[in-house]
Amino acid sequence: MKPPLLGVDYYPEHWPADRWATDARMMHAAGLSVVRIGEFAWAKMEPTEGRYDWRWLDEALEALAAEGLQVVLGTPTSTPPAWLIQKHPDILPVDAQGRRRNFGSRRHYCSNNATYHEYTRRIVTALAHRYGNHPAVIGWQLDNEFGCHDTARCYCENCAAAFRVWLKDKYSSLDALNAAWGAVFWSQSYTDWAQISPPNLTVTEANSSHVLDWYRFSSDSVVAYAQIQISILRQLAPDRFITTNFMGPFPDLDYYQLSAPLDFIAWNSYPTGYAEVTGPTLYMPDEPRPKLAYDVGDPYVTGFCHDLMRGLKDGLPYWVMEQQAGSINWANTNPGIRPGTVRLWTWHDLAAGADTVVYFRWRACLYAQEQYHSGLLRHDAAPDLGYREVLRMKDEQPLMRSIQGARVQVDVAILADYDDLWALDLQPHNHVIAYWRHLFAYHRALVRAGVPTDVVSKQADLSRYKLVIAPSLLLADDVWAARLTAYVKAGGTLVLGVRSGFKTPSNLVTDQPLPGPFRELVGATVEAWHSLPPGVTYPLTDHKHQMLTAAIWAEGLSTQSAQPLMFYTGGPLEGQAAVTVKVVGQGRAVYAGVWPDEAVLNSLISWLLPQAGVQPLALLPEGVLVSRRGSFVFLFNFTDAPATAWLNVTSAVDAFTGQSIERAAAIAARDVRVLSLGADSR
Amino acid sequence: MKPPLLGVDYYPEHWPADRWATDARMMHAAGLSVVRIGEFAWAKMEPTEGRYDWRWLDEALEALAAEGLQVVLGTPTSTPPAWLIQKHPDILPVDAQGRRRNFGSRRHYCSNNATYHEYTRRIVTALAHRYGNHPAVIGWQLDNEFGCHDTARCYCENCAAAFRVWLKDKYSSLDALNAAWGAVFWSQSYTDWAQISPPNLTVTEANSSHVLDWYRFSSDSVVAYAQIQISILRQLAPDRFITTNFMGPFPDLDYYQLSAPLDFIAWNSYPTGYAEVTGPTLYMPDEPRPKLAYDVGDPYVTGFCHDLMRGLKDGLPYWVMEQQAGSINWANTNPGIRPGTVRLWTWHDLAAGADTVVYFRWRACLYAQEQYHSGLLRHDAAPDLGYREVLRMKDEQPLMRSIQGARVQVDVAILADYDDLWALDLQPHNHVIAYWRHLFAYHRALVRAGVPTDVVSKQADLSRYKLVIAPSLLLADDVWAARLTAYVKAGGTLVLGVRSGFKTPSNLVTDQPLPGPFRELVGATVEAWHSLPPGVTYPLTDHKHQMLTAAIWAEGLSTQSAQPLMFYTGGPLEGQAAVTVKVVGQGRAVYAGVWPDEAVLNSLISWLLPQAGVQPLALLPEGVLVSRRGSFVFLFNFTDAPATAWLNVTSAVDAFTGQSIERAAAIAARDVRVLSLGADSR
Amino acid sequence: MKPPLLGVDYYPEHWPADRWATDARMMHAAGLSVVRIGEFAWAKMEPTEGRYDWRWLDEALEALAAEGLQVVLGTPTSTPPAWLIQKHPDILPVDAQGRRRNFGSRRHYCSNNATYHEYTRRIVTALAHRYGNHPAVIGWQLDNEFGCHDTARCYCENCAAAFRVWLKDKYSSLDALNAAWGAVFWSQSYTDWAQISPPNLTVTEANSSHVLDWYRFSSDSVVAYAQIQISILRQLAPDRFITTNFMGPFPDLDYYQLSAPLDFIAWNSYPTGYAEVTGPTLYMPDEPRPKLAYDVGDPYVTGFCHDLMRGLKDGLPYWVMEQQAGSINWANTNPGIRPGTVRLWTWHDLAAGADTVVYFRWRACLYAQEQYHSGLLRHDAAPDLGYREVLRMKDEQPLMRSIQGARVQVDVAILADYDDLWALDLQPHNHVIAYWRHLFAYHRALVRAGVPTDVVSKQADLSRYKLVIAPSLLLADDVWAARLTAYVKAGGTLVLGVRSGFKTPSNLVTDQPLPGPFRELVGATVEAWHSLPPGVTYPLTDHKHQMLTAAIWAEGLSTQSAQPLMFYTGGPLEGQAAVTVKVVGQGRAVYAGVWPDEAVLNSLISWLLPQAGVQPLALLPEGVLVSRRGSFVFLFNFTDAPATAWLNVTSAVDAFTGQSIERAAAIAARDVRVLSLGADSR
Repeated sequence: MKPPLLGVDYYPEHWPADRWATDARMMHAAGLSVVRIGEFAWAKMEPTEGRYDWRWLDEALEALAAEGLQVVLGTPTSTPPAWLIQKHPDILPVDAQGRRRNFGSRRHYCSNNATYHEYTRRIVTALAHRYGNHPAVIGWQLDNEFGCHDTARCYCENCAAAFRVWLKDKYSSLDALNAAWGAVFWSQSYTDWAQISPPNLTVTEANSSHVLDWYRFSSDSVVAYAQIQISILRQLAPDRFITTNFMGPFPDLDYYQLSAPLDFIAWNSYPTGYAEVTGPTLYMPDEPRPKLAYDVGDPYVTGFCHDLMRGLKDGLPYWVMEQQAGSINWANTNPGIRPGTVRLWTWHDLAAGADTVVYFRWRACLYAQEQYHSGLLRHDAAPDLGYREVLRMKDEQPLMRSIQGARVQVDVAILADYDDLWALDLQPHNHVIAYWRHLFAYHRALVRAGVPTDVVSKQADLSRYKLVIAPSLLLADDVWAARLTAYVKAGGTLVLGVRSGFKTPSNLVTDQPLPGPFRELVGATVEAWHSLPPGVTYPLTDHKHQMLTAAIWAEGLSTQSAQPLMFYTGGPLEGQAAVTVKVVGQGRAVYAGVWPDEAVLNSLISWLLPQAGVQPLALLPEGVLVSRRGSFVFLFNFTDAPATAWLNVTSAVDAFTGQSIERAAAIAARDVRVLSLGADSR
Repeated sequence: MKPPLLGVDYYPEHWPADRWATDARMMHAAGLSVVRIGEFAWAKMEPTEGRYDWRWLDEALEALAAEGLQVVLGTPTSTPPAWLIQKHPDILPVDAQGRRRNFGSRRHYCSNNATYHEYTRRIVTALAHRYGNHPAVIGWQLDNEFGCHDTARCYCENCAAAFRVWLKDKYSSLDALNAAWGAVFWSQSYTDWAQISPPNLTVTEANSSHVLDWYRFSSDSVVAYAQIQISILRQLAPDRFITTNFMGPFPDLDYYQLSAPLDFIAWNSYPTGYAEVTGPTLYMPDEPRPKLAYDVGDPYVTGFCHDLMRGLKDGLPYWVMEQQAGSINWANTNPGIRPGTVRLWTWHDLAAGADTVVYFRWRACLYAQEQYHSGLLRHDAAPDLGYREVLRMKDEQPLMRSIQGARVQVDVAILADYDDLWALDLQPHNHVIAYWRHLFAYHRALVRAGVPTDVVSKQADLSRYKLVIAPSLLLADDVWAARLTAYVKAGGTLVLGVRSGFKTPSNLVTDQPLPGPFRELVGATVEAWHSLPPGVTYPLTDHKHQMLTAAIWAEGLSTQSAQPLMFYTGGPLEGQAAVTVKVVGQGRAVYAGVWPDEAVLNSLISWLLPQAGVQPLALLPEGVLVSRRGSFVFLFNFTDAPATAWLNVTSAVDAFTGQSIERAAAIAARDVRVLSLGADSR
Repeated sequence: MKPPLLGVDYYPEHWPADRWATDARMMHAAGLSVVRIGEFAWAKMEPTEGRYDWRWLDEALEALAAEGLQVVLGTPTSTPPAWLIQKHPDILPVDAQGRRRNFGSRRHYCSNNATYHEYTRRIVTALAHRYGNHPAVIGWQLDNEFGCHDTARCYCENCAAAFRVWLKDKYSSLDALNAAWGAVFWSQSYTDWAQISPPNLTVTEANSSHVLDWYRFSSDSVVAYAQIQISILRQLAPDRFITTNFMGPFPDLDYYQLSAPLDFIAWNSYPTGYAEVTGPTLYMPDEPRPKLAYDVGDPYVTGFCHDLMRGLKDGLPYWVMEQQAGSINWANTNPGIRPGTVRLWTWHDLAAGADTVVYFRWRACLYAQEQYHSGLLRHDAAPDLGYREVLRMKDEQPLMRSIQGARVQVDVAILADYDDLWALDLQPHNHVIAYWRHLFAYHRALVRAGVPTDVVSKQADLSRYKLVIAPSLLLADDVWAARLTAYVKAGGTLVLGVRSGFKTPSNLVTDQPLPGPFRELVGATVEAWHSLPPGVTYPLTDHKHQMLTAAIWAEGLSTQSAQPLMFYTGGPLEGQAAVTVKVVGQGRAVYAGVWPDEAVLNSLISWLLPQAGVQPLALLPEGVLVSRRGSFVFLFNFTDAPATAWLNVTSAVDAFTGQSIERAAAIAARDVRVLSLGADSR
């Protein structure tokens, strides 16, 4: 059975009960078929301890079901009610400054609090008992945005104690811990587990291995907390799906672990918010931004999020659980949208691998924290632009449905890993270097080259990819080297970026020449690494004798069994290789020893793609994106002007009009084209 | 009896007693007639608990009185002494980060501390007993700069408890509170009053209604604290005036409520400090600043402060209790002044409605926090420039005295309200939007157009104004709409700015189309509001087909019974009105649906003034200001070069020279001209 | 006996014992002769309370001694071990925000903690007992980088109590304290010693005298803590030297007092780190930076540090205890070095007065906080560039040794004082003014003019200098005036900068005309001082009728017995003198009443040098420095291109080649020339 297609996030508790039927009717009228409810309504469900009030929720479900709407029910644990906090104030989390946070917003709980675990079990059990088999309820969302608002890491005494238990489990002995952390440095050696604290409020920076383990522990704590809920729901709601809503490149949790026990993942896409808030963390500080329509967000950012989210469960179709559908309230300027924007986003979601798109939120709220957040309806209940956009897409739903379930077709993968992220960002060495920035640079260059790209766990099955890029495989050992060597030998093309293999998985620097365990695979050795200050560059030349420059980070390589692909033509690394390639079995291993700017990436990619047998889907102008899902190719124009893409596919017809497509496909401003590929298409 | 004209702030306790007579003689010699003393001298008045030492104060008063100087006596409650804090450390306030502040500067008390209330009663009673009928003491200043240094809001346990009492008084029931706050959102519903805390240290932003009530409560607490002192003084010093010193656009207290029980208000004017510190909060971040003499401050800022302060008590003459008279010590560069600067400021004070100007401070202090603050005398007791300036004004005092008591003549008012300020600044939506910025934009445009403007409470009597501008009447209901409608019907011209009527007085968003209760009055409806990111503008045209642009914030209006005055000629709101006007009764209601930049304001004002029958006093170059008080018109040149203003008044003579004035009046750099209007002047 | 020449900082505890012999052999092979060890190894020396483990240290010493290496042993007190903190958590310091810091990095102790004093005595005694007479141990380093990471000032209850004792010692009575602090201001008078706290967390700025005494007390506390260790070592290691490592222009401790009981000082030189982190505090915010090779740091900054450090003990040869020898890990970009850089730094150290240069660190560490800090060896034990550079210098060691012990030859001194620094930086009045900036401006101008310059305590013997500059002699009295007058009368040339004599040594502003006690000496009076905002300058003319401008700070002087050297030709100080000179006895007293920019400084210096009989050593292009030590002159080129200096010395030969030197001496990029002066050289 196909999943629902379009839906909306709804808060019946915010509106009079006599309004619900009207709302449900309007949802149905717009072609919406699924509604998420309940995720913040604990105080409505259990107004005082142990006294449950299900009437309102029964009625709300009834009102929705009456219009044929399916429901995703949220567990309300991101908002423990006032009576619970009053009784057990130690549930409140403590921040890195040592301050106990107050009640009065959301996510005010510590994931390691045993009392809270117990109350979590009670409310989830009660909810699942009542609605686990409700015919309208098709699945469950756990909590809401785990880790948001700096809550992934709590510094309370409970957490300190749990951290010690976690460390004992991991290391068994203090000797092992002291060795793993290099605790002999600065006399940090521990002689009693009780001496170990969270790594906050130290006089100067804490031990990076201490912090890394703290990050791992904190992430594990949230994963374990989620599992409490999952176990109950699996038992009491046996045929329903379980998911939760992720937040793109959120760095504080190991999303691969958090997503593992779920049926599929869902994420929250706020393109203008991500462009304003996340964009500056993905682009280099002084990097010029692409020229885009101001209201669509930044599709390179949104697209990177989609590809990262899709990779959490290896390409499985997912949901967008909260799709921006108007202006939001939490960024700097929160621009409004234009006609076409919501449709563009919706198609982008589908093309990127989403099966279901749920708009946030039904109606703009009259009170509290989100008064300035748009809904499909305005505050006065009149249809806002979002609602009109959804209505407009009604005719397109059959086409959308024909896309559901298909896999996104991708030949290239970028490898991601949260241990690598944490270890790198803890010690970036050069203050503009950051893990996501590194991945985003490669990703954006590929996307601009018309090459759809996955972002997947470094544990993923790589055999399906022609080209694999591992920009920052910082923590590695011989097992990793063997795995990647096998991939290359079997014909894959692998790119390792700067600092690859610099450390062991337990965060010790390798005592071998760099790139440590990958040395044999790449056939070259890093003789020196230079962090470059602003304005300093080293000249490079590439395989076409094109003049390029290395900035930010430059490694000088000696080649043993590799060939240079780029080398330094001046500066202190003159004559050394900057990028090398080695043929290994049926494949190639490339080591890219420079921080990649646009020119270096364009050179590298133009060499890599034909070598790896990767064919771009299209030649694209700035702001235009292409992707392929199942037998459909999608072209998106995120600019304010008409644009043309040169397609590399044949035998395609426009899925809206049935007209056959020329090589030069025109796309209107802020528009999408969907191309249906024939059986003989290539 | 006329109030004193010029005075000085004096700290006899900072100098040897044998110096006092010399100081008093020099004050008298310079033409000063009033002295403020005592406001920080608690430790001198009551060196240990219950042991009062009045001798020094008796003698200081005697020394001043001997030279005919009148005295304003300050209650010393902004500086509780060390012995009191040692005995009752819970008097110390707690900041929003939860930190108890230390003794060692000033304002280190919590307004809700019952112990402090008791000690306040004791010292004020003792002081009033002794000096309430002292012949030299003409009036009292309460405390000093209520709320300064972030002390309006204290987050201690006492305040939390008092907040709960205040909420109970306001809402009676938790159901009412939960409804008013929309507490159902994120399960914030309270089931016990004790669950409610101050809204600090929440995990993410707190509920805006919770915060707004906290701001109101905090302001009320300070007002109630002041009332403790007022009640005592009214009884024990029955014929003396009571005032306190305000701080211009200080946003943390409801100045209308704080000023209500006073006889008149006083404020502290530090033009270079306000220019350096407050200026950036009033201009837009990227707005070019006017070219002014560097030492005079910014007269648009100083003038806005004067007009705001004068409006606290509806135009009643006021005092400048601390007038900068040299360089200050608390801004970034603290520039020194030049000859003429202090005179310019003094005349500006008088022209703006002050009856009395008191210079801060008599002599530069040798120690502690204000060592780098100038006085009229230097550290070495030699006359500094300030003293020489005051001497120079001695001849001008008769003219100054003839101005005292008169009302400032104004045809235009801008409405201000602290509830609106708090509610808007809590959720500005676009991070460069701020309440005072919005008011200042309108105010400065009018001032530059030669139109003196009041800033008054939205509760003020509007019938005296031809034109009323309400830039941000955010919180409104039908009562407000009726009031303003009556004003318009009676012939007034009203301008409502963006977001008018967006919320109810209890901070819920209206569920009616915008501008909510003003819809009928303006005859138009806001169909969409767009926050615009940097660099994005929408093209507009005005009634003269002049091309303008909307930036920052743009609302698209449909007109019902109004006419468009400006409309969008492109962008997503193309074809919709941006500014509308509707004739209502004898008047006109204008809705300005754009954030006003300079060009939009000039267009709007040039249309409004003749419609409203407002005649500018003069045509002015940048840096030149005009105002009218009683039968005098004042022209100020705050630039470094001579300037000319084109006057719209006739039959005026120069009050210094007696020469009649031409239309083109020349004003020397850093100078003032005072024009006396004849009986037939217009 | 000559001190060792080159050495390295080594952490045997970071590496397997079976590696130590190899390391020692490689050290010896590179020509290193001294090794610092032990300063962070408390947990290795005393793994649990009272159980000492000396075996590893015995063996490490043995391994080093076997290669003839001498050892400096560090007391490990900057890193109290976990077991000690667990037992006595009150040892942990409290920061100015009131937060107790955690274990997990270094310097986590309060200098006033009596328990920590006891444990310090125990470990130092134990260490000294065992190694005080060890033949390989030639001396001791106390602790490590006293005060680093904001640890000079602790705000715990112990410190508060100790502060009160310190105040009682200083003032005897509260009356005296209240008078000295001007506590009558804002009712700050104390009636009980217990009322006095550290000056943190006050509502607004604290009393500057309170803060100044707190700074003095905190510095004294660290000095007293160091003395605990010194007393033990003097007794138990009677023939060994004692030193500690200083940090250049570190502002939180009185380095003159800290260095007094030491045999000589040592400091840590990280040129790229100082350029990135300290540079912005020494240059004006908008000042253009010199064009230098990017990897050498900023020699004007490094040189200022050297001259300041050399002055701590009046020119006595010193050690560089940690000399950067690769990339560091604690600045923004941490650039790598090039061939020649380490040699350049080493020669710069020697030319500046160092006898011994110890490189930090032997081998890059595999774990913990310094994983990205280079060593002479790479992580994989291969020689890094640093090691190769040291090897290259082996042939130059004989020449280096012939320089050891000699004094640096200097004719000019700049006076420095930590009381002045603290008092000025507490109340800079203009936010770009800072004490080190003021000294650095004068220093750099002299260095660029080819005039080597000392930075010495204002208590130093001035008779050896032809020219003495006191940029900020803020705190002064008649004793100081008499001392400087005697210097001038005896033929010295003295320059006093802005704000000289503004305050008494107890931080009260003088009640005399400025420059207070120096008035008679300079023969001029400051009539006004103006802080100038950005963009405002006053025109000046100098003795050659050259047009200059005053910015930032301008004082207007009337001359009594002085002559103007520069005066204002416009602005509010027009006609007043800006810089004056008075002949006094055999010398001259100059008062420089302007903040000195480059043009003003060049004018002033070009006038001063011939008057004072100071001959520049050479005429230098930007980035080239000259100095003289004993009978050698050194020329350094810190740029990327060859440069030429015009020498003012005769009869010199190149100490490397023996060739005689022309006036125009060429220096290769990133290179040094050493010139040996003949007996008849001048």
